[in-house]
Amino acid sequence: MKQSHTTPDVSVDVVLLTLDEGMLKVALHKRASAPGKGSLALPGGYVHVDEDASLEATAYRVLREKTGLEPRYLEQLRTFGGPERDPRGWSVAVSHVALIPHGELSQAGAGVFHFYDVDDLPDLAFDHAGQIQEAVQRVRNKASYSTLPCWLLPELFTLTQLQGIYEQIFGETVSRGTFRSRLGIRVSEVTPGESADEADILIATEQFQGGNQRPARLFRVNRLSLFKRAFW
Amino acid sequence: MKQSHTTPDVSVDVVLLTLDEGMLKVALHKRASAPGKGSLALPGGYVHVDEDASLEATAYRVLREKTGLEPRYLEQLRTFGGPERDPRGWSVAVSHVALIPHGELSQAGAGVFHFYDVDDLPDLAFDHAGQIQEAVQRVRNKASYSTLPCWLLPELFTLTQLQGIYEQIFGETVSRGTFRSRLGIRVSEVTPGESADEADILIATEQFQGGNQRPARLFRVNRLSLFKRAFW
Repeated sequence: MKQSHTTPDVSVDVVLLTLDEGMLKVALHKRASAPGKGSLALPGGYVHVDEDASLEATAYRVLREKTGLEPRYLEQLRTFGGPERDPRGWSVAVSHVALIPHGELSQAGAGVFHFYDVDDLPDLAFDHAGQIQEAVQRVRNKASYSTLPCWLLPELFTLTQLQGIYEQIFGETVSRGTFRSRLGIRVSEVTPGESADEADILIATEQFQGGNQRPARLFRVNRLSLFKRAFW
Repeated sequence: MKQSHTTPDVSVDVVLLTLDEGMLKVALHKRASAPGKGSLALPGGYVHVDEDASLEATAYRVLREKTGLEPRYLEQLRTFGGPERDPRGWSVAVSHVALIPHGELSQAGAGVFHFYDVDDLPDLAFDHAGQIQEAVQRVRNKASYSTLPCWLLPELFTLTQLQGIYEQIFGETVSRGTFRSRLGIRVSEVTPGESADEADILIATEQFQGGNQRPARLFRVNRLSLFKRAFW
């Protein structure tokens, strides 16, 4: 390896998004140390070359250490680098975006995270506001041709909950019929142990949610079809 | 900054793509030094913290130093990192993809680059084969909803040349009429100094190419509409 003064620092940041009260929100914490002590920032940390097997492993470790969280959906967003973004010198931040149901996040992140509407951000440390803007744009774009928003729901969800998620992301209300035809849903009824067809977006389970009169069937996402079809 | 043994090395690699003899090809060079001396690799190099203003600046500097090239289209692909990808230790490679017309590339890169069909790659150093596969997938995906392939043409091009580029990328021949309707072309006739409408994909110039009988009008890309419409 090269001398330390010629090598940038490398950290991983995570834009952790959730839906709360009908708004897409980002999880921020107050920095405990300088630079930017006390200011709001994304969760993140340096790559530990002695323990991390990949950049994604760094992202998972950082979240685990801060909150015990392990998001089911995490992808790399983009890498930011330059001499100005951190006062300590030339630095590289490999930014990730993760989606997580609000119930899970607020439980694991209690006392650590504060939630802010992504369209009304407070002042943030470093270039974190820019990272959040890019992450939100990515999620809104991908929502139009993928099942990405499903990851904002619990593992099992009703079709009504799914419709609510899409409406919240796009800020548009649609009728139940319109939603289902736009979604072009193909639902597979898979018995446990059997595998789903790649063409099916959702997998119907044998479980139902509440209601004495009309219990709603619970679905889960078919991981095989994650980016297979236009949704919206 | 941290001690050098706890910080990964950071380099930038560029997947330089071009169209040659109807095939999408990648520019590779033979490594002059260890590790992997003599093996084929993507152009790349370490971030120089004393001179580079950003990761993109590193990518442009590396290409300039190797060949004098400055691609008109360059974007970040993804960042690869881990303890195994380089025998020198934990390393991070910020991978970029660039598109360049073959005439420009073969002139500037003469004696430096060798060109290989992206669907029939030789053995490559490090994780460069994986980087190329991701870059090609990205370009083929984006080609279906953007003017990206235009960057494989010279700055001024005819509609016939443009059609040829799309056919080469997708491996499908279409009639002239079908191509133009799929393209949904909106052409703006802009006089010098005037700015184009964001809705127009191509800008008609006052220049024509060859042919005594039916000279073909030359067009250029409207940068404002780069990712505005579905193409294919």
